[in-house]
Amino acid sequence: MALNETEWFTEIQDKTGTAFSLRIRERLHSEKSPYQQIDIYETTDFGRLMILDGCTMVSDRDNFLYHEMMTHPALFTHPAARQVAIIGGGDCGTLREVLRHDSVEQAWQIEIDERVTRLSEQYFPALCEANDDPRAELLFEDGIAWMKQRPENSLDLIIIDSTDPVGPAEGLFGLPFYLSCLAALKPGGLLIQQTESPLLHQELIRDVHQTLREAGFQAVRPLLFPQPIYPSGWWSATMARKSADLNGFREMGAASKGFATRYYSVDTHKAALAIPPFLQQLLATPDAS
Amino acid sequence: MALNETEWFTEIQDKTGTAFSLRIRERLHSEKSPYQQIDIYETTDFGRLMILDGCTMVSDRDNFLYHEMMTHPALFTHPAARQVAIIGGGDCGTLREVLRHDSVEQAWQIEIDERVTRLSEQYFPALCEANDDPRAELLFEDGIAWMKQRPENSLDLIIIDSTDPVGPAEGLFGLPFYLSCLAALKPGGLLIQQTESPLLHQELIRDVHQTLREAGFQAVRPLLFPQPIYPSGWWSATMARKSADLNGFREMGAASKGFATRYYSVDTHKAALAIPPFLQQLLATPDAS
Repeated sequence: MALNETEWFTEIQDKTGTAFSLRIRERLHSEKSPYQQIDIYETTDFGRLMILDGCTMVSDRDNFLYHEMMTHPALFTHPAARQVAIIGGGDCGTLREVLRHDSVEQAWQIEIDERVTRLSEQYFPALCEANDDPRAELLFEDGIAWMKQRPENSLDLIIIDSTDPVGPAEGLFGLPFYLSCLAALKPGGLLIQQTESPLLHQELIRDVHQTLREAGFQAVRPLLFPQPIYPSGWWSATMARKSADLNGFREMGAASKGFATRYYSVDTHKAALAIPPFLQQLLATPDAS
Repeated sequence: MALNETEWFTEIQDKTGTAFSLRIRERLHSEKSPYQQIDIYETTDFGRLMILDGCTMVSDRDNFLYHEMMTHPALFTHPAARQVAIIGGGDCGTLREVLRHDSVEQAWQIEIDERVTRLSEQYFPALCEANDDPRAELLFEDGIAWMKQRPENSLDLIIIDSTDPVGPAEGLFGLPFYLSCLAALKPGGLLIQQTESPLLHQELIRDVHQTLREAGFQAVRPLLFPQPIYPSGWWSATMARKSADLNGFREMGAASKGFATRYYSVDTHKAALAIPPFLQQLLATPDAS
């Protein structure tokens, strides 16, 4: 059956032979920023939806999955993260979750495209409700250059909340950037990066693992969680740590956290760390390329 | 962007405002059986794909997720399931996984539409490779009637591997059928049923829980796992037990199982049992209807 193009937004993933569509009520906004095409829709069933260069970025209905899992597992693994940098993350949902942690003293959001944040403030106000927190600093510049200039041993946590590894985000998946991150992290510091679908993008996940290890991170491991509006509905992040392992997390802290979550819990944290055999096998196999 | 209808198969979910598409190379088969429209495609990236009445049923690439999770968690929860009934499951992938367990002495697959099985034998031979196992009995009849006539206390495990709860499968989600299942199960026996998407079909999941409890099952709990070709890419099954609880499973057995799996493991079994706060809240709330 064909989809009426005026009633549905469709993200076509040519490389994976898949497409995902959401039914729309109306297009609320459309513009070409200096970096990308930005469209915002009101959908019939997922609330508002932001699209960057034709790819789904965030919806009201399911962003809690992604934002909670890009933040709380890392923040409950680190003993007490004080300085946190978010690379990308322009919709501000990741920043909001980071700031729920009392340990955090400073959180920088380094988003290259200011228009993403301004439009999120307008159309996704709930995601931006912590933007005025005095601990938050919103910067609109290149995250790769920013990280290169960070003082050594000055960050506890780096969250790479970027678009897919094509175009402007490509450099965020490379060795030079990871070396900057490693230098900027304090010993025991953590990095977490969104790394696409465990079913559809296995080579990317393996490459990120190998490149992080090559950069000198002592421990690297994937996290898996659902994310229905992203290709395959199943998503991964990769967590890496400087000069320390990634065994265990602060279960007591997570169990007694003083804020509500809809997906994250001690149990779903552990669930995200459960790596199925096919992925264990992939990550144990050297890259053939 | 619009999808060319000759190059893509699209499942439109009108009720949830979502659609999922796979790119196709060719249509291999199309027929109207006495029960439903059956189409089989060769896709570009997911191998072969079977469609029933416009809904994705099984693909070569991702069926391991569904079939492993509809079987092994229940089979490693029961101490030693000997008599197993599969209601539906016409593609035979569930039967194959059941028969990997040495404890199983008899496995009945009760599929109403023989054509689904015959076409699976032809186009999905790997799923059917256990059909000749002497322990297997393939019946082509109404699962509801079959269950009603089962002797009491004669089954250890009932797997309800059906299509969505509309049309012929609707009765498989109702109290009379659950009462038949409860009577047919031995004490300590288990039922597991596919119960749609945790994001999109929350009312169904809650209704199934309540109806199973109403029928007299002592313990009921959900399992969650990824399933990319189904709506939202995130799927649930509901497990219920007669005269016993659902705490724990045979971890030693699962860790030392004598067969390979691609998704199932001790860790992913536990992960499937991790229920996020939003779903815990839903299941604790009485149905308002």
